[in-house]
Amino acid sequence: MASHETIPIQNSSSFLSTSTIVALCVFFALLCACIVIGHLLEENRWANESITALLLGLCAGAIVLLIEKGQDSRLLAFSEDLFFLYLLPPIIFNAGFQVKKKQFFKNFTTILLFGILGTVISFCLISLGAFLLFKRIGLTTLTLQQFLAIGAILSATDSVCTLQVLSQDETPFLYSIVFGEGVVNDATSIVLYNAVQSLNFNNIDATITLKLLGNFLYLFFTSTALGVVVSLLSAFVIKTLYFGRHSTDREVALMMLMAYLSYLLAELLNLSGILTVFFCGIVMSHYTWHNVTESSRITTKHAFATMSFIAETFIFVYVGMDAFDIEKWKGSNASAATSVTISATFFALVLIGRAAFVFPLANFINCIQKRDSNKIEFKQQFIMWWAGLMRGAVTIALSYNQFSNTKKISSSDSALMITCTIIVVLFSTIVCGSVTKPLIEAVLLRNRKTNVSDATDIPSLEEDLRQLFFENGDSSGQGNNQIAPRASSLRLLIAHPTITVHYLWRKFDDKFMRPVFGGRGFVPFVPGSPTGADDETSAAV
Amino acid sequence: MASHETIPIQNSSSFLSTSTIVALCVFFALLCACIVIGHLLEENRWANESITALLLGLCAGAIVLLIEKGQDSRLLAFSEDLFFLYLLPPIIFNAGFQVKKKQFFKNFTTILLFGILGTVISFCLISLGAFLLFKRIGLTTLTLQQFLAIGAILSATDSVCTLQVLSQDETPFLYSIVFGEGVVNDATSIVLYNAVQSLNFNNIDATITLKLLGNFLYLFFTSTALGVVVSLLSAFVIKTLYFGRHSTDREVALMMLMAYLSYLLAELLNLSGILTVFFCGIVMSHYTWHNVTESSRITTKHAFATMSFIAETFIFVYVGMDAFDIEKWKGSNASAATSVTISATFFALVLIGRAAFVFPLANFINCIQKRDSNKIEFKQQFIMWWAGLMRGAVTIALSYNQFSNTKKISSSDSALMITCTIIVVLFSTIVCGSVTKPLIEAVLLRNRKTNVSDATDIPSLEEDLRQLFFENGDSSGQGNNQIAPRASSLRLLIAHPTITVHYLWRKFDDKFMRPVFGGRGFVPFVPGSPTGADDETSAAV
Repeated sequence: MASHETIPIQNSSSFLSTSTIVALCVFFALLCACIVIGHLLEENRWANESITALLLGLCAGAIVLLIEKGQDSRLLAFSEDLFFLYLLPPIIFNAGFQVKKKQFFKNFTTILLFGILGTVISFCLISLGAFLLFKRIGLTTLTLQQFLAIGAILSATDSVCTLQVLSQDETPFLYSIVFGEGVVNDATSIVLYNAVQSLNFNNIDATITLKLLGNFLYLFFTSTALGVVVSLLSAFVIKTLYFGRHSTDREVALMMLMAYLSYLLAELLNLSGILTVFFCGIVMSHYTWHNVTESSRITTKHAFATMSFIAETFIFVYVGMDAFDIEKWKGSNASAATSVTISATFFALVLIGRAAFVFPLANFINCIQKRDSNKIEFKQQFIMWWAGLMRGAVTIALSYNQFSNTKKISSSDSALMITCTIIVVLFSTIVCGSVTKPLIEAVLLRNRKTNVSDATDIPSLEEDLRQLFFENGDSSGQGNNQIAPRASSLRLLIAHPTITVHYLWRKFDDKFMRPVFGGRGFVPFVPGSPTGADDETSAAV
Repeated sequence: MASHETIPIQNSSSFLSTSTIVALCVFFALLCACIVIGHLLEENRWANESITALLLGLCAGAIVLLIEKGQDSRLLAFSEDLFFLYLLPPIIFNAGFQVKKKQFFKNFTTILLFGILGTVISFCLISLGAFLLFKRIGLTTLTLQQFLAIGAILSATDSVCTLQVLSQDETPFLYSIVFGEGVVNDATSIVLYNAVQSLNFNNIDATITLKLLGNFLYLFFTSTALGVVVSLLSAFVIKTLYFGRHSTDREVALMMLMAYLSYLLAELLNLSGILTVFFCGIVMSHYTWHNVTESSRITTKHAFATMSFIAETFIFVYVGMDAFDIEKWKGSNASAATSVTISATFFALVLIGRAAFVFPLANFINCIQKRDSNKIEFKQQFIMWWAGLMRGAVTIALSYNQFSNTKKISSSDSALMITCTIIVVLFSTIVCGSVTKPLIEAVLLRNRKTNVSDATDIPSLEEDLRQLFFENGDSSGQGNNQIAPRASSLRLLIAHPTITVHYLWRKFDDKFMRPVFGGRGFVPFVPGSPTGADDETSAAV
């Protein structure tokens, strides 16, 4: 040991910058700690991994700040590139890969309504509220464009935390609505935010709404199509060349790389990478996953979940540490009272903005639903409202993007906007995150039997399908099996649109897609399926 | 679609820099192409994934250069951080994780001899050769320190390519020697390179060699110990808290994170991260891997292999693309003839430097080995010499580190050194990489029966062990089972050191390690073991 000290030899890390290694060490040690603590708190219903990570990140941030004696430390800086390029894609891909597809597509109309119209309503209300209230608080330097940006920033819900708080198994209906809304919300937020960035506010006319809607539809359909095309390509390549013959690793590598490539291509083509990679995950779990060897199936299922889990935990540690970035707090000259007032205003606007679309839209859906079992109860509406209140890393990233390099308003007001956004994110994640699980238990699961929609929607669907097959069996028995099913399908499409679409899709899948792209189709049970054994098994032919 | 064009809306990639996305897209598309082509060429014995990746990288580099019209492109730049922080650790960890442990430790003395003494011999010869020859070629600006650096740079063998070219199943002995040497070589190279960087050449005395040796030993033992400690900690935590109870993903995540953390800690403490993460992999596969659930075992086995595979392919694509970084070629004003002469000199020095230690050291080992079956035949020596000729990304990284920012010699000579290093790397990888497999088939496998050492070492070891247990059984039958085994162990230690160490280690493992850290011990067969079914099974108790 002594010899090491006396020889004037440089250290091996001369290849690497020490600050990078220190930062990585701290982050990875924190991640390990989060996993161990998360495991120990598993039985605790108030805590979860997100909150543990956030609190650990806050502690670490405070310690780093003390060590650095209040100096700026690059360790704490939030990087948009890191977040959007490396952390978000695995999370969203895994969500698509493990989502219960039938539940998701069954509620597709509701999801679209919430994700598009809901986000727009929330955006308008928050912008308007900020515009009316901030003048009174004393913030006068904000422009109209800034107010609209605030609306877009605070309308971006956090899909990551939703995934951790809601359980796909316990409350599949709520999960699919709130999470699905979060994914669609991303595309809407991007369109709104970018529109706000570039619209000419001196020249607003009525056609602008139509143009925005057109732009959204373009973004939605092209992003989805890209994800579907890339994943079908992966299914086709793996099926045709039969990679499993030589190596399991190549199959796994190809699935990972092509999933990530779909995200990168979407970003390159200026589409919504989140939508693309989400649909890529859905289609991959339907086709590609069934074309690979058994080992690859187990590996991909768990490896994708693990990567997503690490990325989620990383984001929360990161957001926690970022909160102590001293430069931001120095930049804003506002008093603590002003910061708290503005943060409270922000959060109140988020609460109202979400209430303003969840309850009306849910009741609107209830009105057009004929069947009682498909209606959304008030209790469920309440949980939908509450579970979507969390704001996360997307909000922080957008806030940095808007306010960190702006020259239009005073730098102190910019810093104030960023710090208040961080306060809202921390508050909503910690409070809403910890209260949601107990709230769901108290409101929904305690009187499970009365909760019709969440408990019985799968049996009711099964019943519908049995009806459908009974009718088809009838018509094919009469010999005219070419025309009669189509006629009955059309009739069914009007009576039960979702179920009929599902039935037609399955026929199409069996006839045209599966021969080319593989996949298991709709067989009753595949052990270790990424979406769980109960997915689609109830609809087994 | 038209609406998208007419609205003045910014695109979604405003959060991300376009150049990063383009670079990532190109790399990931190339990786996918490599996997598909590698699969199609699997039966071809001349080609392998490394060469495919290198050639694809070269093609892509040429195309990028054409598109950029000879301008500098950041797409092509080689980053030491990316290589040492993100690409190298998964490869070396996986090598440790999947290495056949018994074979590796059986040849440990040979590996150490080759890795330490061999690298030093090669370093001295290459430095001396460069010093004597380069003056004649016309390179006069190089200092003594530069010549020694060249020696260290060209002595760094490429473990990554070795892994791809040698097969652990076909030639386990060669694999363990050449790959093990590559891992130890890394620690030696770091010590040599850093010593060269910082030694004061005006004040060299005899004690410097001793000091360097002391420094190496310090580096070797602390790095190994760190890897062992971190992996034992992971085994202990996973065994004690029983993570599998709640979640497979946490187990997998914890294994990944702690493996990477061991590398980061080693770099932070100025140790050899490669040695640390390699031993971390070995110990993790012995203890931690057996403490997790069945799904986690399959997942980690394939996920680690896949990540390593992706990283390897990435490195070769990267090195290929980097070769066309036009700035370097512009910087060196030398004619094509000079470049070729220097590159040829480099490669000749590598050939001689390796020959100068492989053959003498192998014969030295043969002399001290009493048993004929343990001797290294000339054919094997030849393959050992040939298979270790490849130079890879480590050489390029060290070369950049040495010559890219130096102010001591003219910039044209620096650029010349870098470009010649790249030529040597490309040439050695393509030529040695493609010829090694057919060469092994022609030299070793054709007359498999005469190749005693590689074919029969496991049965002979088994015989030794049977002898050993027979003796122990005898002594315990006499009632003095406390003293007699120890006495016979001591006698055996002198007669058969490797086998006795192995036996003692197993007793220690069963008695003290396994109760604390778990692991399977030495049971005959574990399905899907990362080191293959035949590892340690022959020595089953």
